[in-house]
Amino acid sequence: MKVERIERGTVIDHILPARAFDVLRVLRLSNDRSMSILVNTHSKKGGKKDILKFEDVELSAEEANLVALISPQATINYIVDGKVARKFNAESPEVVRGILTCSNPNCISNRNEPITTEFKKVSAKDQRYVCSYCERDIEDLVNRIGVQTTSDR
Amino acid sequence: MKVERIERGTVIDHILPARAFDVLRVLRLSNDRSMSILVNTHSKKGGKKDILKFEDVELSAEEANLVALISPQATINYIVDGKVARKFNAESPEVVRGILTCSNPNCISNRNEPITTEFKKVSAKDQRYVCSYCERDIEDLVNRIGVQTTSDR
Repeated sequence: MKVERIERGTVIDHILPARAFDVLRVLRLSNDRSMSILVNTHSKKGGKKDILKFEDVELSAEEANLVALISPQATINYIVDGKVARKFNAESPEVVRGILTCSNPNCISNRNEPITTEFKKVSAKDQRYVCSYCERDIEDLVNRIGVQTTSDR
Repeated sequence: MKVERIERGTVIDHILPARAFDVLRVLRLSNDRSMSILVNTHSKKGGKKDILKFEDVELSAEEANLVALISPQATINYIVDGKVARKFNAESPEVVRGILTCSNPNCISNRNEPITTEFKKVSAKDQRYVCSYCERDIEDLVNRIGVQTTSDR
């Protein structure tokens, strides 16, 4: 079950199996995009992986790097004329705003105040982030996704 | 952006655009399945549609028919040896258990009682369902999806 090449767009490959939906939440794309999502597809290297393909969309490096929060091994491929024009590894951002929620129930960011959540990376190796408001360490990033909409702020 | 044929499995075609994720919620499949999801893909008949392909899985007619709650025009195709072996239109079920939530806040099914939600179809034409507990009519089915897990019951 393979997806044919796209002519132009962005392919996010090597997403951890069954994590593509979390990646989509983090990317906050509008739901009118053309995309294909392969879940638990067989990797050539063995094992399983997910793939996301966005047609006619070039994700910014900033957007694409958010993928690393969910799947640090993911690669970003820009496709032009049916070929990979540029490829890089997703790199988790130094600062993440409006995407993760603090695990501290007393943190001001959990008190319905009109603020945007913010976390700073403290360790690249093990993906550790710290809340900019209360300095709580958060590690289990996948379970801390809580994308804010404008009305939340 | 087309997906190559699968050798064996189930294809749900003609899902309303951007509704594939709602269909997945209703189907309650475990997240270790191999599948591909095409969102906002161009339909040959014009317009957009979503497609779901499940490899090596034959959904039961009962499962497949749940798709009609979200997308009444959807077709179910069983693929064997790369070809469509059987095709039918999804037909919304007479009774829906554990998938929709009642819009009546005072309904016993919204009171943390150990019961399974249940709705009966009262009109095939406009997809009207009625709560078996409080007889509240519900119409906007997509916004009433609240899949129960075993621990909810």
